[in-house]
Amino acid sequence: MPARMSGEDAMNPVLAVGSVAFDTIKNPFGEATRVVGGSATYFSLAASFFTEVRLVAVVGEDFAERGGHVFAGRPIDLGGLQTVPGETFRWKGEYGFDLNARETIYTKLNVFEDFRPVIPQTYRSSPFVFLGNIHPRLQLEVLEQVQGPRLVAADTMNYWIEGTPDELREVLKRIDILIINDSEARELSRQSNLVKAARVIRSLGPCTVVIKRGENGVLMTCAGEGEFFAAPAMPLEEVFDPTGAGDTFAGGFVGSLAASNIIDEAALARAIIYGSTLASFTVEDFSVDRLLRLTKEEVRERFRYFKRLTHFEEA
Amino acid sequence: MPARMSGEDAMNPVLAVGSVAFDTIKNPFGEATRVVGGSATYFSLAASFFTEVRLVAVVGEDFAERGGHVFAGRPIDLGGLQTVPGETFRWKGEYGFDLNARETIYTKLNVFEDFRPVIPQTYRSSPFVFLGNIHPRLQLEVLEQVQGPRLVAADTMNYWIEGTPDELREVLKRIDILIINDSEARELSRQSNLVKAARVIRSLGPCTVVIKRGENGVLMTCAGEGEFFAAPAMPLEEVFDPTGAGDTFAGGFVGSLAASNIIDEAALARAIIYGSTLASFTVEDFSVDRLLRLTKEEVRERFRYFKRLTHFEEA
Repeated sequence: MPARMSGEDAMNPVLAVGSVAFDTIKNPFGEATRVVGGSATYFSLAASFFTEVRLVAVVGEDFAERGGHVFAGRPIDLGGLQTVPGETFRWKGEYGFDLNARETIYTKLNVFEDFRPVIPQTYRSSPFVFLGNIHPRLQLEVLEQVQGPRLVAADTMNYWIEGTPDELREVLKRIDILIINDSEARELSRQSNLVKAARVIRSLGPCTVVIKRGENGVLMTCAGEGEFFAAPAMPLEEVFDPTGAGDTFAGGFVGSLAASNIIDEAALARAIIYGSTLASFTVEDFSVDRLLRLTKEEVRERFRYFKRLTHFEEA
Repeated sequence: MPARMSGEDAMNPVLAVGSVAFDTIKNPFGEATRVVGGSATYFSLAASFFTEVRLVAVVGEDFAERGGHVFAGRPIDLGGLQTVPGETFRWKGEYGFDLNARETIYTKLNVFEDFRPVIPQTYRSSPFVFLGNIHPRLQLEVLEQVQGPRLVAADTMNYWIEGTPDELREVLKRIDILIINDSEARELSRQSNLVKAARVIRSLGPCTVVIKRGENGVLMTCAGEGEFFAAPAMPLEEVFDPTGAGDTFAGGFVGSLAASNIIDEAALARAIIYGSTLASFTVEDFSVDRLLRLTKEEVRERFRYFKRLTHFEEA
């Protein structure tokens, strides 16, 4: 990642590639059936608070009626959202009283099974690219279509770490930032200590590694002499539904970076807090419902609360 | 706790009551036999970086030879350290590769079994009091001997939460700050959510609740409209021996407060960071070895690193 990035564009659009889905979620507080989900959905909505998003994903013909509304009225360009015959990706999950553990009841890939990301011509020069948690081969296909992006961030998961390690290694060589869960960071690096894990992952390619630790916050290491940045999670009294929290975090993080004129350690730290702020709203309701009601003023207010929560001064 | 505290005394001594022990510790990196341990030992050494400590504890006749050196040359008054016939409290613990889980091999209370805290006359007006993790009845006995302290902080554990709940409730009514582990906070409050747990514990008496979360940092709530302060743990590549980390944290926390002219939310936040800073050193070696080698300059440096680790600014 360049140490300095020119801020000539008032808006640096983010190209986001990933899944759009219908989720059915059951938890101790209730059930939501066939609500809008998918990693790219949460990502795009969160990033759209900061910049323009160009969404590349696939949905079935059943999407428009139940899901079309979620992107409306926001700076989210749907020119790359393919609608194809068949049903949209569906996922059903169930949470017990420990909202950190969830069980997948089913995953029906449907139209997502044959998804090949086709980047519209007008998107190819997007300065910021986010590769959602899809097959590393598809992530590489995206990178082959874009033209010299300034910053590429990616997500991945245990399924690809175990199943397609060689292709994942290729992706890692070509990205600037990896955003990953703590358990996945441990698995990818084969290190139980997260400081060591971050260092190993950096040696595989990404200059910046962001480790999501759920209710334990976020740990980031970036270029420089092994400097870290750490944020606690927002202390929340009620977590209603954690689905999409990690994707929302990524959207707030990358969106905030895209809105920064200079990308330095201060911008990365601020982006971690914006990501955490957005994620803390997502968990307050099912699906993207809280994000749809969210205002920029609420985001600013909670960002400031995060500052009071974590800042201190020498005597 | 008074919102403002006069800073007339250049030094506000801390009266610390707790255990001094010999520990035998085995972990994957080695073994340390009959080294100095005990909650009041770690507490006093950590607090002595900030202020004068008045230690009330009991040791056997075997202590002086192997343990006498640890307090030497520091502002730790040993006038309340009773030496009685018999052996010093001994504890043996074993850690596996997961340093968060330890097994107690034995606990030999020895002279600690009949310990009754006798507060020397000159200690009774100590402005700061720390009640280490001992029987709540003994903690109450200490409070009956002191004269109007400005601030009382206490620790406790599951053993007293389960075994002596009524006496513990009496203690909670009479202290300003409870410093407690996350699992103990959950047990004491019967709330799995730590935000709710902190609120329930505050309703039992202490105005400020500090929840130690080990490698996940610290969460504090204090007077005011339910405001929280949260700190991540220092990202450490190597944790050698976590024994005493919590007691060291408490010592750095209370010691830093005692050295503050005004005790407000800023002083409490700073104290959390000093506690975390001191604890991050303790885990680098067996026993109090790292604390004995530690310099004030190292403490200041790591405090500043903590700031770089956690601070961010709005764009």
